[in-house]
Amino acid sequence: MAWDTEGTRRKLREAALVEFAARGFDGTSVGAIAARAGVNKERLYSYFGDKRALWDLVLATELERLAAAVGSTGARLGDFGEFAGATFDYHAAHPELSRLLQWEGLQDGPPADVARRTHHYREKVEQFAAAQRAGLLDRGLDPAHLVFALIALAAWWQTVPQLVEMITGADPRDDQEHARRRAFVVEAARRLAAPPGVRLSPTAPRPD
Amino acid sequence: MAWDTEGTRRKLREAALVEFAARGFDGTSVGAIAARAGVNKERLYSYFGDKRALWDLVLATELERLAAAVGSTGARLGDFGEFAGATFDYHAAHPELSRLLQWEGLQDGPPADVARRTHHYREKVEQFAAAQRAGLLDRGLDPAHLVFALIALAAWWQTVPQLVEMITGADPRDDQEHARRRAFVVEAARRLAAPPGVRLSPTAPRPD
Repeated sequence: MAWDTEGTRRKLREAALVEFAARGFDGTSVGAIAARAGVNKERLYSYFGDKRALWDLVLATELERLAAAVGSTGARLGDFGEFAGATFDYHAAHPELSRLLQWEGLQDGPPADVARRTHHYREKVEQFAAAQRAGLLDRGLDPAHLVFALIALAAWWQTVPQLVEMITGADPRDDQEHARRRAFVVEAARRLAAPPGVRLSPTAPRPD
Repeated sequence: MAWDTEGTRRKLREAALVEFAARGFDGTSVGAIAARAGVNKERLYSYFGDKRALWDLVLATELERLAAAVGSTGARLGDFGEFAGATFDYHAAHPELSRLLQWEGLQDGPPADVARRTHHYREKVEQFAAAQRAGLLDRGLDPAHLVFALIALAAWWQTVPQLVEMITGADPRDDQEHARRRAFVVEAARRLAAPPGVRLSPTAPRPD
Protein backbone atom coordinates (compact mmCIF):
# COMPACT_ATOMS: atom_id res chain seq x y z
CA MET A 1 0.00 0.00 0.00
CA ALA A 2 1.36 3.43 -0.92
CA TRP A 3 1.55 5.95 1.89
CA ASP A 4 -1.11 8.65 1.78
CA THR A 5 1.54 11.35 1.98
CA GLU A 6 -0.74 14.34 1.50
CA GLY A 7 -3.25 13.05 4.01
CA THR A 8 -0.53 12.41 6.57
CA ARG A 9 0.97 15.85 6.08
CA ARG A 10 -2.45 17.43 6.50
CA LYS A 11 -3.11 15.48 9.71
CA LEU A 12 0.24 16.57 11.12
CA ARG A 13 -0.38 20.22 10.26
CA GLU A 14 -3.86 20.16 11.79
CA ALA A 15 -2.53 18.50 14.94
CA ALA A 16 0.30 21.04 15.11
CA LEU A 17 -2.18 23.94 14.88
CA VAL A 18 -4.24 22.54 17.78
CA GLU A 19 -1.21 21.84 19.98
CA PHE A 20 0.65 25.09 19.25
CA ALA A 21 -2.51 27.18 19.80
CA ALA A 22 -3.15 25.45 23.11
CA ARG A 23 0.36 25.49 24.58
CA GLY A 24 2.60 27.67 22.41
CA PHE A 25 5.94 26.77 20.87
CA ASP A 26 7.81 26.13 24.11
CA GLY A 27 4.98 24.16 25.70
CA THR A 28 4.46 21.82 22.75
CA SER A 29 6.49 18.70 22.05
CA VAL A 30 6.92 17.09 18.64
CA GLY A 31 5.80 13.86 20.30
CA ALA A 32 2.48 15.43 21.34
CA ILE A 33 1.79 16.61 17.79
CA ALA A 34 2.67 13.23 16.32
CA ALA A 35 0.50 11.45 18.90
CA ARG A 36 -2.49 13.70 18.19
CA ALA A 37 -2.11 13.06 14.47
CA GLY A 38 -1.65 9.33 15.04
CA VAL A 39 1.57 9.46 13.03
CA ASN A 40 5.09 8.36 13.83
CA LYS A 41 7.33 11.13 15.16
CA GLU A 42 10.08 10.28 12.66
CA ARG A 43 7.66 10.94 9.83
CA LEU A 44 7.01 14.42 11.19
CA TYR A 45 10.74 15.15 11.15
CA SER A 46 11.17 13.82 7.64
CA TYR A 47 8.23 15.84 6.29
CA PHE A 48 8.70 19.15 8.09
CA GLY A 49 12.22 19.31 9.49
CA ASP A 50 12.09 20.36 13.11
CA LYS A 51 9.55 21.87 15.52
CA ARG A 52 10.53 25.42 14.63
CA ALA A 53 10.00 24.82 10.90
CA LEU A 54 6.57 23.35 11.61
CA TRP A 55 5.65 26.31 13.85
CA ASP A 56 6.67 28.71 11.09
CA LEU A 57 4.64 26.78 8.53
CA VAL A 58 1.52 26.66 10.73
CA LEU A 59 1.60 30.37 11.53
CA ALA A 60 2.33 31.33 7.91
CA THR A 61 -0.57 29.16 6.71
CA GLU A 62 -3.03 30.73 9.15
CA LEU A 63 -1.91 34.23 8.19
CA GLU A 64 -2.35 33.39 4.48
CA ARG A 65 -5.88 32.24 5.23
CA LEU A 66 -6.57 35.49 7.07
CA ALA A 67 -5.19 37.53 4.16
CA ALA A 68 -7.29 35.54 1.67
CA ALA A 69 -10.44 35.97 3.79
CA VAL A 70 -9.95 39.70 4.31
CA GLY A 71 -9.16 40.25 0.64
CA SER A 72 -7.60 43.31 -0.91
CA THR A 73 -8.72 46.68 0.35
CA GLY A 74 -10.43 49.07 -2.03
CA ALA A 75 -9.63 52.74 -1.86
CA ARG A 76 -12.89 54.15 -0.47
CA LEU A 77 -13.50 54.90 3.17
CA GLY A 78 -16.15 52.18 3.42
CA ASP A 79 -13.57 49.67 2.21
CA PHE A 80 -11.33 50.46 5.15
CA GLY A 81 -14.21 49.93 7.54
CA GLU A 82 -14.86 46.61 5.85
CA PHE A 83 -11.18 45.68 6.11
CA ALA A 84 -11.50 46.08 9.88
CA GLY A 85 -14.85 44.26 9.93
CA ALA A 86 -13.55 41.31 7.89
CA THR A 87 -10.46 41.11 10.12
CA PHE A 88 -12.75 41.06 13.17
CA ASP A 89 -14.85 38.28 11.59
CA TYR A 90 -11.84 36.15 10.82
CA HIS A 91 -10.35 36.46 14.29
CA ALA A 92 -13.71 35.78 15.94
CA ALA A 93 -14.16 32.62 13.86
CA HIS A 94 -10.53 31.48 14.29
CA PRO A 95 -9.46 32.09 17.89
CA GLU A 96 -6.47 29.78 17.34
CA LEU A 97 -4.83 32.43 15.13
CA SER A 98 -5.04 35.02 17.88
CA ARG A 99 -3.52 32.51 20.28
CA LEU A 100 -0.62 31.78 17.92
CA LEU A 101 0.09 35.52 17.64
CA GLN A 102 -0.05 35.89 21.42
CA TRP A 103 2.37 33.04 21.93
CA GLU A 104 4.62 34.68 19.37
CA GLY A 105 4.37 37.98 21.26
CA LEU A 106 5.45 36.23 24.45
CA GLN A 107 8.41 34.49 22.81
CA ASP A 108 11.83 35.94 22.28
CA GLY A 109 13.41 35.89 18.88
CA PRO A 110 12.32 36.72 15.35
CA PRO A 111 8.75 36.12 14.18
CA ALA A 112 7.84 33.32 11.78
CA ASP A 113 7.98 34.02 8.05
CA VAL A 114 9.14 37.55 8.72
CA ALA A 115 10.11 38.61 5.18
CA ARG A 116 6.79 37.74 3.59
CA ARG A 117 4.72 39.12 6.45
CA THR A 118 6.67 42.38 6.45
CA HIS A 119 6.11 42.67 2.70
CA HIS A 120 2.37 42.05 3.15
CA TYR A 121 2.02 44.69 5.88
CA ARG A 122 4.09 47.24 4.01
CA GLU A 123 1.81 46.77 0.99
CA LYS A 124 -1.19 47.43 3.21
CA VAL A 125 0.47 50.55 4.60
CA GLU A 126 1.18 51.73 1.05
CA GLN A 127 -2.51 51.20 0.12
CA PHE A 128 -3.52 53.37 3.06
CA ALA A 129 -0.91 55.99 2.17
CA ALA A 130 -2.11 56.10 -1.44
CA ALA A 131 -5.70 56.61 -0.28
CA GLN A 132 -4.50 59.43 1.97
CA ARG A 133 -2.70 61.10 -0.95
CA ALA A 134 -5.87 60.76 -3.02
CA GLY A 135 -7.85 62.50 -0.26
CA LEU A 136 -9.99 59.40 0.38
CA LEU A 137 -8.57 58.99 3.88
CA ASP A 138 -7.54 61.67 6.32
CA ARG A 139 -3.88 62.61 6.08
CA GLY A 140 -3.44 63.48 9.74
CA LEU A 141 -2.43 60.00 10.92
CA ASP A 142 0.62 57.90 10.07
CA PRO A 143 -0.63 55.17 7.70
CA ALA A 144 1.43 52.46 9.43
CA HIS A 145 -0.03 53.41 12.81
CA LEU A 146 -3.47 53.37 11.21
CA VAL A 147 -3.01 49.84 9.83
CA PHE A 148 -1.84 48.72 13.25
CA ALA A 149 -4.78 50.39 14.99
CA LEU A 150 -7.34 48.76 12.71
CA ILE A 151 -5.84 45.33 13.36
CA ALA A 152 -5.75 46.05 17.10
CA LEU A 153 -9.41 47.10 17.13
CA ALA A 154 -10.35 44.00 15.17
CA ALA A 155 -8.22 41.43 16.97
CA TRP A 156 -7.85 42.46 20.62
CA TRP A 157 -11.28 41.08 21.55
CA GLN A 158 -9.87 37.60 21.02
CA THR A 159 -6.59 38.38 22.77
CA VAL A 160 -8.06 39.23 26.17
CA PRO A 161 -11.53 37.65 26.26
CA GLN A 162 -11.74 37.85 30.06
CA LEU A 163 -11.05 41.60 29.96
CA VAL A 164 -13.75 42.12 27.33
CA GLU A 165 -16.25 40.29 29.48
CA MET A 166 -15.37 42.37 32.55
CA ILE A 167 -15.69 45.64 30.63
CA THR A 168 -18.83 44.88 28.63
CA GLY A 169 -20.55 42.51 31.03
CA ALA A 170 -21.80 40.76 27.88
CA ASP A 171 -21.58 37.19 26.70
CA PRO A 172 -19.57 36.95 23.44
CA ARG A 173 -21.69 33.98 22.35
CA ASP A 174 -24.72 36.29 22.28
CA ASP A 175 -25.27 36.85 18.53
CA GLN A 176 -26.55 40.38 19.05
CA GLU A 177 -23.51 41.38 21.09
CA HIS A 178 -21.29 39.86 18.42
CA ALA A 179 -23.03 41.90 15.72
CA ARG A 180 -22.77 45.05 17.85
CA ARG A 181 -19.04 44.51 18.36
CA ARG A 182 -18.53 44.09 14.64
CA ALA A 183 -20.50 47.25 13.89
CA PHE A 184 -18.42 49.09 16.49
CA VAL A 185 -15.16 47.95 14.88
CA VAL A 186 -16.30 49.05 11.41
CA GLU A 187 -17.50 52.42 12.69
CA ALA A 188 -14.34 52.94 14.78
CA ALA A 189 -12.16 52.26 11.71
CA ARG A 190 -14.17 54.79 9.73
CA ARG A 191 -13.86 57.40 12.46
CA LEU A 192 -10.10 56.97 12.60
CA ALA A 193 -9.66 57.14 8.85
CA ALA A 194 -12.37 59.53 7.69
CA PRO A 195 -11.28 62.77 6.05
CA PRO A 196 -12.74 65.99 7.48
CA GLY A 197 -16.43 66.39 6.79
CA VAL A 198 -17.15 62.66 6.59
CA ARG A 199 -18.14 61.80 10.11
CA LEU A 200 -21.03 59.44 10.58
CA SER A 201 -22.62 57.78 13.53
CA PRO A 202 -23.46 54.07 13.22
CA THR A 203 -27.14 54.71 12.73
CA ALA A 204 -26.79 57.41 10.08
CA PRO A 205 -27.12 56.50 6.40
CA ARG A 206 -23.78 55.94 4.73
CA PRO A 207 -23.19 57.75 1.44
CA ASP A 208 -20.14 55.78 0.35
CA MET B 1 17.37 38.10 65.02
CA ALA B 2 13.78 38.93 64.05
CA TRP B 3 12.73 37.96 60.55
CA ASP B 4 12.39 40.88 58.15
CA THR B 5 8.87 39.80 57.25
CA GLU B 6 7.97 42.77 55.06
CA GLY B 7 11.26 42.60 53.19
CA THR B 8 10.85 38.89 52.58
CA ARG B 9 7.29 39.33 51.36
CA ARG B 10 8.42 42.07 49.00
CA LYS B 11 11.24 39.95 47.62
CA LEU B 12 8.84 37.08 46.99
CA ARG B 13 6.33 39.33 45.24
CA GLU B 14 9.00 40.86 43.04
CA ALA B 15 10.38 37.45 42.15
CA ALA B 16 6.86 36.21 41.40
CA LEU B 17 6.25 39.14 39.04
CA VAL B 18 9.43 38.38 37.09
CA GLU B 19 8.77 34.65 36.88
CA PHE B 20 5.06 34.89 36.06
CA ALA B 21 5.67 37.55 33.39
CA ALA B 22 8.37 35.41 31.80
CA ARG B 23 6.64 32.04 31.82
CA GLY B 24 2.99 32.49 32.80
CA PHE B 25 1.08 30.72 35.53
CA ASP B 26 1.42 27.19 34.15
CA GLY B 27 5.10 27.58 33.27
CA THR B 28 6.17 28.90 36.67
CA SER B 29 6.92 26.78 39.72
CA VAL B 30 6.74 27.94 43.30
CA GLY B 31 10.29 26.63 43.67
CA ALA B 32 11.54 28.94 40.90
CA ILE B 33 9.98 31.97 42.58
CA ALA B 34 11.40 31.04 45.99
CA ALA B 35 14.85 30.42 44.47
CA ARG B 36 14.84 33.77 42.68
CA ALA B 37 13.88 35.51 45.92
CA GLY B 38 16.46 33.52 47.89
CA VAL B 39 13.73 32.46 50.31
CA ASN B 40 12.60 29.09 51.52
CA LYS B 41 9.64 27.66 49.59
CA GLU B 42 7.77 26.88 52.79
CA ARG B 43 7.88 30.56 53.71
CA LEU B 44 6.21 31.43 50.41
CA TYR B 45 3.37 29.03 51.19
CA SER B 46 2.93 30.37 54.70
CA TYR B 47 2.87 34.00 53.53
CA PHE B 48 0.77 33.74 50.39
CA GLY B 49 -1.07 30.43 50.36
CA ASP B 50 -0.60 28.71 47.04
CA LYS B 51 0.67 29.61 43.56
CA ARG B 52 -2.77 30.68 42.38
CA ALA B 53 -3.21 33.10 45.31
CA LEU B 54 0.20 34.60 44.59
CA TRP B 55 -0.63 34.98 40.87
CA ASP B 56 -3.89 36.74 41.78
CA LEU B 57 -2.06 39.06 44.15
CA VAL B 58 0.67 39.93 41.63
CA LEU B 59 -1.79 40.70 38.84
CA ALA B 60 -4.09 42.68 41.15
CA THR B 61 -1.12 44.72 42.40
CA GLU B 62 0.05 45.57 38.88
CA LEU B 63 -3.46 46.59 37.85
CA GLU B 64 -3.77 48.81 40.92
CA ARG B 65 -0.52 50.50 39.95
CA LEU B 66 -1.84 51.03 36.43
CA ALA B 67 -5.08 52.51 37.77
CA ALA B 68 -3.15 54.83 40.11
CA ALA B 69 -0.84 55.95 37.30
CA VAL B 70 -3.66 56.60 34.85
CA GLY B 71 -5.70 58.43 37.45
CA SER B 72 -9.35 59.31 37.26
CA THR B 73 -10.71 60.52 33.97
CA GLY B 74 -12.12 64.02 33.72
CA ALA B 75 -15.21 64.66 31.66
CA ARG B 76 -13.76 66.66 28.77
CA LEU B 77 -12.76 65.17 25.46
CA GLY B 78 -9.10 65.96 26.05
CA ASP B 79 -9.27 63.96 29.27
CA PHE B 80 -10.29 60.87 27.34
CA GLY B 81 -7.38 61.31 24.99
CA GLU B 82 -5.11 61.63 28.02
CA PHE B 83 -6.64 58.49 29.55
CA ALA B 84 -5.53 56.60 26.44
CA GLY B 85 -2.14 58.35 26.45
CA ALA B 86 -1.46 57.59 30.11
CA THR B 87 -2.51 53.97 29.59
CA PHE B 88 -0.09 53.77 26.65
CA ASP B 89 2.70 55.25 28.80
CA TYR B 90 2.13 52.81 31.60
CA HIS B 91 2.09 49.75 29.34
CA ALA B 92 5.18 50.94 27.48
CA ALA B 93 7.07 51.40 30.75
CA HIS B 94 5.78 48.14 32.28
CA PRO B 95 5.82 45.41 29.63
CA GLU B 96 5.47 42.80 32.36
CA LEU B 97 1.82 43.87 32.92
CA SER B 98 0.98 43.28 29.28
CA ARG B 99 2.63 39.87 29.49
CA LEU B 100 0.59 38.95 32.59
CA LEU B 101 -2.62 39.93 30.78
CA GLN B 102 -1.60 37.88 27.75
CA TRP B 103 -0.88 34.83 29.85
CA GLU B 104 -4.27 35.32 31.46
CA GLY B 105 -5.88 35.55 28.02
CA LEU B 106 -4.28 32.23 27.08
CA GLN B 107 -5.38 30.49 30.26
CA ASP B 108 -8.71 28.86 30.87
CA GLY B 109 -10.73 29.76 33.89
CA PRO B 110 -11.77 32.95 35.63
CA PRO B 111 -9.50 36.00 35.71
CA ALA B 112 -7.70 37.10 38.87
CA ASP B 113 -9.48 39.49 41.23
CA VAL B 114 -12.54 39.49 39.00
CA ALA B 115 -15.01 41.30 41.26
CA ARG B 116 -12.81 44.33 41.89
CA ARG B 117 -11.63 44.58 38.30
CA THR B 118 -15.18 44.33 36.97
CA HIS B 119 -16.24 47.08 39.36
CA HIS B 120 -13.34 49.28 38.22
CA TYR B 121 -14.14 48.82 34.52
CA ARG B 122 -17.85 49.35 35.02
CA GLU B 123 -17.07 52.63 36.79
CA LYS B 124 -14.98 53.68 33.82
CA VAL B 125 -17.81 52.75 31.45
CA GLU B 126 -20.23 54.79 33.57
CA GLN B 127 -17.87 57.81 33.40
CA PHE B 128 -17.86 57.54 29.61
CA ALA B 129 -21.65 57.12 29.52
CA ALA B 130 -22.13 60.20 31.73
CA ALA B 131 -19.91 62.25 29.42
CA GLN B 132 -21.97 61.04 26.48
CA ARG B 133 -25.20 62.08 28.18
CA ALA B 134 -23.66 65.48 28.90
CA GLY B 135 -22.82 65.86 25.20
CA LEU B 136 -19.06 65.92 25.91
CA LEU B 137 -18.52 62.66 24.03
CA ASP B 138 -20.31 61.40 20.96
CA ARG B 139 -23.34 59.23 21.74
CA GLY B 140 -23.04 57.04 18.67
CA LEU B 141 -20.80 54.37 20.22
CA ASP B 142 -21.42 51.96 23.08
CA PRO B 143 -19.46 53.32 26.07
CA ALA B 144 -18.24 49.85 27.07
CA HIS B 145 -16.94 49.20 23.58
CA LEU B 146 -15.30 52.61 23.66
CA VAL B 147 -13.48 51.88 26.94
CA PHE B 148 -12.32 48.59 25.48
CA ALA B 149 -11.15 50.24 22.24
CA LEU B 150 -9.12 52.87 24.08
CA ILE B 151 -7.37 50.20 26.14
CA ALA B 152 -6.76 48.14 22.99
CA LEU B 153 -5.23 51.12 21.17
CA ALA B 154 -3.05 51.89 24.18
CA ALA B 155 -1.94 48.37 25.08
CA TRP B 156 -1.75 46.27 21.90
CA TRP B 157 1.65 47.69 20.97
CA GLN B 158 3.12 45.77 23.90
CA THR B 159 1.09 42.64 23.17
CA VAL B 160 2.47 41.95 19.70
CA PRO B 161 5.79 43.83 19.48
CA GLN B 162 6.99 41.77 16.50
CA LEU B 163 3.84 42.65 14.54
CA VAL B 164 4.29 46.36 15.31
CA GLU B 165 7.84 46.21 14.05
CA MET B 166 6.80 44.48 10.80
CA ILE B 167 4.02 47.02 10.15
CA THR B 168 5.87 50.19 11.07
CA GLY B 169 9.42 49.18 10.19
CA ALA B 170 10.42 51.34 13.16
CA ASP B 171 12.48 50.64 16.23
CA PRO B 172 10.38 51.06 19.40
CA ARG B 173 13.49 52.18 21.32
CA ASP B 174 13.65 55.22 19.02
CA ASP B 175 12.40 58.06 21.25
CA GLN B 176 10.82 59.91 18.35
CA GLU B 177 8.87 56.85 17.23
CA HIS B 178 7.73 56.32 20.80
CA ALA B 179 6.47 59.91 20.98
CA ARG B 180 4.73 59.55 17.63
CA ARG B 181 2.97 56.38 18.78
CA ARG B 182 1.78 58.10 21.91
CA ALA B 183 0.48 61.08 19.93
CA PHE B 184 -1.29 58.67 17.58
CA VAL B 185 -3.01 56.89 20.49
CA VAL B 186 -4.20 60.18 22.02
CA GLU B 187 -5.48 61.45 18.67
CA ALA B 188 -7.13 58.11 17.84
CA ALA B 189 -8.96 58.15 21.18
CA ARG B 190 -10.19 61.68 20.48
CA ARG B 191 -11.38 60.74 17.01
CA LEU B 192 -13.35 57.81 18.37
CA ALA B 193 -14.94 59.79 21.16
CA ALA B 194 -15.37 63.27 19.71
CA PRO B 195 -18.89 64.62 19.32
CA PRO B 196 -19.83 65.93 15.86
CA GLY B 197 -18.05 69.14 14.95
CA VAL B 198 -15.00 68.48 17.10
CA ARG B 199 -12.63 66.78 14.71
CA LEU B 200 -8.99 67.76 14.88
CA SER B 201 -5.86 66.53 13.23
CA PRO B 202 -2.81 66.00 15.45
CA THR B 203 -1.14 69.17 14.27
CA ALA B 204 -4.15 71.43 14.71
CA PRO B 205 -4.48 73.58 17.82
CA ARG B 206 -6.67 72.01 20.46
CA PRO B 207 -9.39 74.20 21.92
CA ASP B 208 -10.23 71.98 24.87
